[in-house]
Amino acid sequence: MLSALAATLATAVGPDHVVTGDDPSVADLCHDEALGVPAGKPAHVVWPADRDEVAAVVRAARAHGVSVTARGAGTGLSGAATPDDGAVLVAFARMDRILEIDPVDAVAVVQPGVTLADLDAAAGEHGLTYPVHPGELSASVGGTVATNAGGMRAVRYGVTRAHVLGLEAVLADGSVARTGGRLVKVSSSYDLTQLLVGSEGTLALVTEVTVRLHPQLPVRRTVLAPFSSAEAVTTAVGRVLATGLAPSVCEYLDGPTMRAVCAAADLTLGLPDDLLDADHLLVELAGRRAERVDEDAEELAELLGAAGAADVFDLPAGSARRLVEAREKAFWAVKAAGADEIVDLVVPRSAMAAFLARARAAGDAHGARVLGCGHAGDGNVHLAVFQPDPDALAATLHDVFAAGIALGGAISGEHGVGRAKARHLAELGDPGALDVVRRVRAALDPDGVLNPGCALR
Amino acid sequence: MLSALAATLATAVGPDHVVTGDDPSVADLCHDEALGVPAGKPAHVVWPADRDEVAAVVRAARAHGVSVTARGAGTGLSGAATPDDGAVLVAFARMDRILEIDPVDAVAVVQPGVTLADLDAAAGEHGLTYPVHPGELSASVGGTVATNAGGMRAVRYGVTRAHVLGLEAVLADGSVARTGGRLVKVSSSYDLTQLLVGSEGTLALVTEVTVRLHPQLPVRRTVLAPFSSAEAVTTAVGRVLATGLAPSVCEYLDGPTMRAVCAAADLTLGLPDDLLDADHLLVELAGRRAERVDEDAEELAELLGAAGAADVFDLPAGSARRLVEAREKAFWAVKAAGADEIVDLVVPRSAMAAFLARARAAGDAHGARVLGCGHAGDGNVHLAVFQPDPDALAATLHDVFAAGIALGGAISGEHGVGRAKARHLAELGDPGALDVVRRVRAALDPDGVLNPGCALR
Repeated sequence: MLSALAATLATAVGPDHVVTGDDPSVADLCHDEALGVPAGKPAHVVWPADRDEVAAVVRAARAHGVSVTARGAGTGLSGAATPDDGAVLVAFARMDRILEIDPVDAVAVVQPGVTLADLDAAAGEHGLTYPVHPGELSASVGGTVATNAGGMRAVRYGVTRAHVLGLEAVLADGSVARTGGRLVKVSSSYDLTQLLVGSEGTLALVTEVTVRLHPQLPVRRTVLAPFSSAEAVTTAVGRVLATGLAPSVCEYLDGPTMRAVCAAADLTLGLPDDLLDADHLLVELAGRRAERVDEDAEELAELLGAAGAADVFDLPAGSARRLVEAREKAFWAVKAAGADEIVDLVVPRSAMAAFLARARAAGDAHGARVLGCGHAGDGNVHLAVFQPDPDALAATLHDVFAAGIALGGAISGEHGVGRAKARHLAELGDPGALDVVRRVRAALDPDGVLNPGCALR
Repeated sequence: MLSALAATLATAVGPDHVVTGDDPSVADLCHDEALGVPAGKPAHVVWPADRDEVAAVVRAARAHGVSVTARGAGTGLSGAATPDDGAVLVAFARMDRILEIDPVDAVAVVQPGVTLADLDAAAGEHGLTYPVHPGELSASVGGTVATNAGGMRAVRYGVTRAHVLGLEAVLADGSVARTGGRLVKVSSSYDLTQLLVGSEGTLALVTEVTVRLHPQLPVRRTVLAPFSSAEAVTTAVGRVLATGLAPSVCEYLDGPTMRAVCAAADLTLGLPDDLLDADHLLVELAGRRAERVDEDAEELAELLGAAGAADVFDLPAGSARRLVEAREKAFWAVKAAGADEIVDLVVPRSAMAAFLARARAAGDAHGARVLGCGHAGDGNVHLAVFQPDPDALAATLHDVFAAGIALGGAISGEHGVGRAKARHLAELGDPGALDVVRRVRAALDPDGVLNPGCALR
């Protein structure tokens, strides 16, 4: 016999679109890719078809005192899509339609379950692109809105937040709010679109997303420059960005990460061994006209040489594409190599090398190996931490987060807080700001229905 | 004898930095430039020197049940800096220091009373620019943060929101929150920076602002293209932006506005009379290299010709600068011409002409003359409405706002809601979103201390 909640959920989404959490078919939906967050055991998994069904699900869960976690593609890295035990997990796989690509206003309107790959491909049919490229293009738009996902192109285009123009969302009481619109600027009371982006399903469940698209840039040139230290890379990055060259990729990789990335991609760059072990800066330029991008690449190469690069490699298009793709998949390389945790702390751009040094020192102090790469143009450092002992790992992470905060950084640049870092944020965040977060959250979700373990503990 | 509140304020900011609101010296501080919002009569005006003094002022006002309005340079256009009668008006004229220009991370840290002109000049010493250029460069940074100010450069660089990386702010209870930082991306719980930008002093008083700066673009070319209709301009704008040419100015002016702007600037463009009365598109391109900007200007001119421009005028640098500056000051031209109200409704870019037509029809129905110009690349239409009769003016405005909302627009693109449009927003905004605004506001300012008449009524 169905429980009262199960019966209500079956009415809400139809009996074919709800299962209990112990159904073996849903085991893979009960976690995301966060290394340190175990899978949850939801009481029910539901697949709503539209906004009204989402609202009915939220109302039902609230009435039964059960929490609600939204799940897109499950590619998140901080556990924000991992449900509590006993929760209702709302899977958006059926809400995966591209509602409109509007080439005149250069916007797309999509349901949250659409993947980034599908959105970018649909935009591409109109000569446009959706340039948010986190590591996984199988990520759902809804998930990237919830986490304010970034990626390698953010140095030129900005993170998800810079692209979301409007939202439709279901609140904790089942009511619906529509924010923003097909509008590139608004100053009409609080920007609720921006409040919801990055809120990790704790304020509302997003049911429709309006994003801006950009003209495609058909020409690319990619340069790889090995340096003798992360400090030298950091200095070079500041000079590159000061030129106004506006690179579309500006990445740091330490030697071990470069080796791991190349191995994972089965990619041979032809660098001598000593240079492969250097600290690398990878810069891609993109533009409308080949002769300009070539000219810019010359200017860039000269600048990098003057900044102390041991050499400057103009990568052939095929190698460049594979290296960029492999860097985007670096998470999988370090996961395969046995990393115990990853961190994507963000610091002022100029503090990247200092932060890396402190993070490695923290690793040394606790017997952890720390590999680094990152979106150097954004100061968004990605660390892989290898330390199987849970206590030593926790101590390392604490010291790493504290070091980043001390340098003016924040817990996460693009992965989000989720369950993985909620405790660290509570400990290290600005107390006044955390108080505001708690008050806003209590105002919109007084019963703590929406993803209660996430964003802040 | 001083009232208890006056005594507390004198203790908070020093006796030399507080006066009563009936002091003749402060008459000009009790309003901004909104045409339809009368000056307020505050009980006290205070000039705090730092964050802690701001906090003490807010606590004192709250304890006495008196509201608080923040005031920067008073250049706002929606009455958000106009105090309630009996309020405490917090003037930020003493908090006008540029705390740091950091050319390496390309950020500035400033107090809220710094003017845009001073900030841009200080950035310029490092080859950088702060590209938020609303009509008045005498505007304060704090005021532009409160209203999310835009301006002509927003089509390329984005509005204020795109530039604010971090804030320090005093909340209604006198507590202090620090948000964001010297960080170009963050995903660490709710983005309170973005929540506060555009909140018009209703959630907090901003006491420090961290903004991003951009490399200067030394080369400019400006093209003026008269078209036979606003529809033709709208179509041309879509084509210009689809190229990826990324203009730094993309403005629409109707014939009467062009005449008023040229007259106000004492500027003769040499256009024949019939072309001066056309619907104009003004496009500026900016870049790093003259030959590229020249080449782009050729491409632009060809595109505009193909899109139906009656002619395409390549403006000499001096005329171009004066025309852009005069367009930036269009508010003063229409004010001098006797406009009774201005509107800066924003619609989807492609709907600009349709909105203009409906707005003019609304004017005709109520005997009002409606002139139009606007940031065409952003769909942000600026109307001047001439109708001295208050009831007919109110009816016109209602119909204009309703027409814009019906086209998918929002009340304001960059001027804000303030006191001027709070009633219209309450009437026409999305009910679910307005409910969220009210709940967030009540959570952060339960006693309604901060600018209670603004943003929403």
